[in-house]
Amino acid sequence: MSPTLAANGDIAAAKPASPATSRVAVVYSEVQNSRIDHPLPLPSVLRSPFKIVDGPASSAAGNPGEIAKLFPNLFGQPSAMLVPSESDMAQPDQKLKIGVVLSGGQAPGGHNVICGIFDYLQERVKGSTVYGFKGGPGGIMKCKYVELTTDYIYPFRNQGGFDMICSGRDKIETPEQFKQAEETAVKLDLDGLVVIGGDDSNTNACLLAENFRVKKLKTQVIGCPKTIDGDLKCKEVPTSFGFDTACKIYAEMIGNVMVDARSTGKYYHFVRLMGRAASHITLECALQTHPNITIIGEEVQQLISELNEILAHDVVDEGGVWKKKLANQSLQLFEFLPEAIQEQLMLERDPHGNVQVAKIETEKMLIKWLKLSWYEGRCGLPTNFDSSYCYALGFAAGALLQSGKTGLISSVWVGNLAAPVEEWTVGGTALTSLMDVERRHGKYKPVIKKAMVELEGAPFKKFASMRDEWAVKNCYISPGPIQFVGPAANAVNHTLLLELGAHA
Amino acid sequence: MSPTLAANGDIAAAKPASPATSRVAVVYSEVQNSRIDHPLPLPSVLRSPFKIVDGPASSAAGNPGEIAKLFPNLFGQPSAMLVPSESDMAQPDQKLKIGVVLSGGQAPGGHNVICGIFDYLQERVKGSTVYGFKGGPGGIMKCKYVELTTDYIYPFRNQGGFDMICSGRDKIETPEQFKQAEETAVKLDLDGLVVIGGDDSNTNACLLAENFRVKKLKTQVIGCPKTIDGDLKCKEVPTSFGFDTACKIYAEMIGNVMVDARSTGKYYHFVRLMGRAASHITLECALQTHPNITIIGEEVQQLISELNEILAHDVVDEGGVWKKKLANQSLQLFEFLPEAIQEQLMLERDPHGNVQVAKIETEKMLIKWLKLSWYEGRCGLPTNFDSSYCYALGFAAGALLQSGKTGLISSVWVGNLAAPVEEWTVGGTALTSLMDVERRHGKYKPVIKKAMVELEGAPFKKFASMRDEWAVKNCYISPGPIQFVGPAANAVNHTLLLELGAHA
Repeated sequence: MSPTLAANGDIAAAKPASPATSRVAVVYSEVQNSRIDHPLPLPSVLRSPFKIVDGPASSAAGNPGEIAKLFPNLFGQPSAMLVPSESDMAQPDQKLKIGVVLSGGQAPGGHNVICGIFDYLQERVKGSTVYGFKGGPGGIMKCKYVELTTDYIYPFRNQGGFDMICSGRDKIETPEQFKQAEETAVKLDLDGLVVIGGDDSNTNACLLAENFRVKKLKTQVIGCPKTIDGDLKCKEVPTSFGFDTACKIYAEMIGNVMVDARSTGKYYHFVRLMGRAASHITLECALQTHPNITIIGEEVQQLISELNEILAHDVVDEGGVWKKKLANQSLQLFEFLPEAIQEQLMLERDPHGNVQVAKIETEKMLIKWLKLSWYEGRCGLPTNFDSSYCYALGFAAGALLQSGKTGLISSVWVGNLAAPVEEWTVGGTALTSLMDVERRHGKYKPVIKKAMVELEGAPFKKFASMRDEWAVKNCYISPGPIQFVGPAANAVNHTLLLELGAHA
Repeated sequence: MSPTLAANGDIAAAKPASPATSRVAVVYSEVQNSRIDHPLPLPSVLRSPFKIVDGPASSAAGNPGEIAKLFPNLFGQPSAMLVPSESDMAQPDQKLKIGVVLSGGQAPGGHNVICGIFDYLQERVKGSTVYGFKGGPGGIMKCKYVELTTDYIYPFRNQGGFDMICSGRDKIETPEQFKQAEETAVKLDLDGLVVIGGDDSNTNACLLAENFRVKKLKTQVIGCPKTIDGDLKCKEVPTSFGFDTACKIYAEMIGNVMVDARSTGKYYHFVRLMGRAASHITLECALQTHPNITIIGEEVQQLISELNEILAHDVVDEGGVWKKKLANQSLQLFEFLPEAIQEQLMLERDPHGNVQVAKIETEKMLIKWLKLSWYEGRCGLPTNFDSSYCYALGFAAGALLQSGKTGLISSVWVGNLAAPVEEWTVGGTALTSLMDVERRHGKYKPVIKKAMVELEGAPFKKFASMRDEWAVKNCYISPGPIQFVGPAANAVNHTLLLELGAHA
């Protein structure tokens, strides 16, 4: 335990897994290096022979009729679950050629998904080939790829970032682009393609799967749920990878400035977190750190829509009798807001009778000191949870491809509150079952709906039950830096725990 | 090693060290809680009987004549070193009343200095009392304090922030303020006072020590070197506490955005670090992470002063012959700078012939994306190094007080590159020996000179020897989050290691 003055951190070269020299010359810190050989546990079903069991036919998240029309070959596919079996499903001489692509913004754990796919095929479908498309979906269209080998992927095990094959934001949308993807699939004789991405990328993966079916190509497509925002999830996909790590990085910083505030007693810090439409990151950080005030966008939206109704149809009396029309929670939020914001919410409306959210100066008033950016959180070293979760997602994708599945999203159900990795359940969920349609340019477009913070969900309810106390007492918690070894190393984020508890 | 879904992190109450209930109700995260009982190693000299050995008479960092006039009672004091002894220096029935104060901005490890003082007295001068002055030096003047007990300090062991007794930026400067401090010293019957602070606070500590001597009060004053900026150090005070932790927090963030940049290949990140005049934090972070470009203020200053000479006395020819007058290093820096900045450095001068530094748009041009603030780094959980270093500083302060010393700064020489804590050397250095004078309002004022980055020092030379390679190759290193357990937990910052190596 003695902090000796041992030479600091730089490990000159990553150890290659085989005698061959590693092709990637990256210099690692001591912590990065210690992560490379971090042993990853696997769900036990993946350690012995298994078979795939299909569930009942699936529907869609909304407008199943339209989804069925958009995905005639895929709509209604059952979920698939891996269960232990007497004999392995491997066929003699089966070999697969699999492509993998990272799509969109980086999220901690992406490398482990690729390692999981690679290791699965190495173990179960010997002689298979994995191609990494470079720079995102553009790499598929331009057929720009690298053949992944044991040595090539070794330095990226349990590492953050997407630098193994890099990512990109291109979409495969137009008929010409689909044609390019087909040409690549044919040229490389691809049996399968794994698309690691967010909601849009997984929608795209499903369209590709459908298109390959239409064109009678053998290429199967499997998606993987990635986004630090946490807005790609549903009952069968409990969380997206990267969320756990990113929230812990942000929560560490928030905890630090809380200690700062408590030490000086002179000021409050205001922290703005990223997360686009959904506020999962903010909610999770609040649950980890207990700030005095937390503003959850979804709750404000709910209040605003109630106010819109009232302002359109009722008299707003000075005495405040009108407030009785607000739902209890919305009333509480309204009373909680500073008067200036209350007034703005009440007075200004656009020509359609809506509150002009853009004019609300809340953020202007509150943002001070600390804006945490995506960049600080999206490229950290993945936590033990994200490392294991991603590795299992990769294994699951491999198993789904081996068994001939397409149009599914790799799914790992991490189970009840106390389930160790060994007990996790593994399988795939029909991508069409996550979909709804949106009307764009006069056409129905399939979309995977972003999961917003549910005001009736367990994480928000927990927050709502505690925030009054947090507001008046300083109940700050400082989570500290992410630990990879020791007592706190295997803690999982509150959001997931609470959602699992609620589902249990 | 399996990341089980164990319940996440909140430990409801800090375990009190004795059956009495802790007086401080703070809710801790799992990591914070795991730190409380982290066993701290001690220099072996502090584990058995020791005596104090004085070195030769000291002088001052500059203008010893003036310093001697300002500190007639203290000037010339020798350094004190603890060495093993046959018998303990404890006198029968000796009991001490000691005050402690945190002064100025927070730095990780401050709590451990206080714990070190407390534990030293508990062990060696039984029956002693420790008063914690609240809210900084203002607490001394207002006699606002809390009596520290085992239970009171327990929850703050190895924790970040200064919230045990809080800090403040008041200075004890005017005759009335000195009078107030005297009154408190008399009222509490103080044998000693430990001032934990930066350069200004330690100067103040020395003035207090001198004043107490003049007034024939028994109260001794000992300083402790605190600042995350790293600019309070000299040969006998190898580093200020907090620097190690803060740099590692910043370096983690920088490493993350480097991985981000490598993953996208689309852009560079620009990071602005804090550190007031001295660039130790920036240099240390550069050594930890290897960015493409690092701008060290001290080097730019050196270039500017050479340019001033040239512009004042020489012809600046188009062909660039004038550049031969620049020192080699300055020329390299000049050539390294973008043309727009070169031009500004050459063309604009103020009425005194100096380059108008304030007009240089370097920062405006470079600052984008990420500004790391003091707040993110100054309140983190102290690293193992800062935890142990501070604890030893506290013990040393206790030993110096017990042996009747005043006007010294607690000093822990962490020794050669590989010295474990057990081998650290402990003692005190005359505060007057760190001092020079500055002329303010027609009077000489004593100041501890801020230690700037030395362009001839080992850390800068190491950086200079590597930056050309870093500029053209991407040699990024991502240090990852601070670890408290495991292989990287006891690494020490490059600056200290290199300086120790250079001194060895």
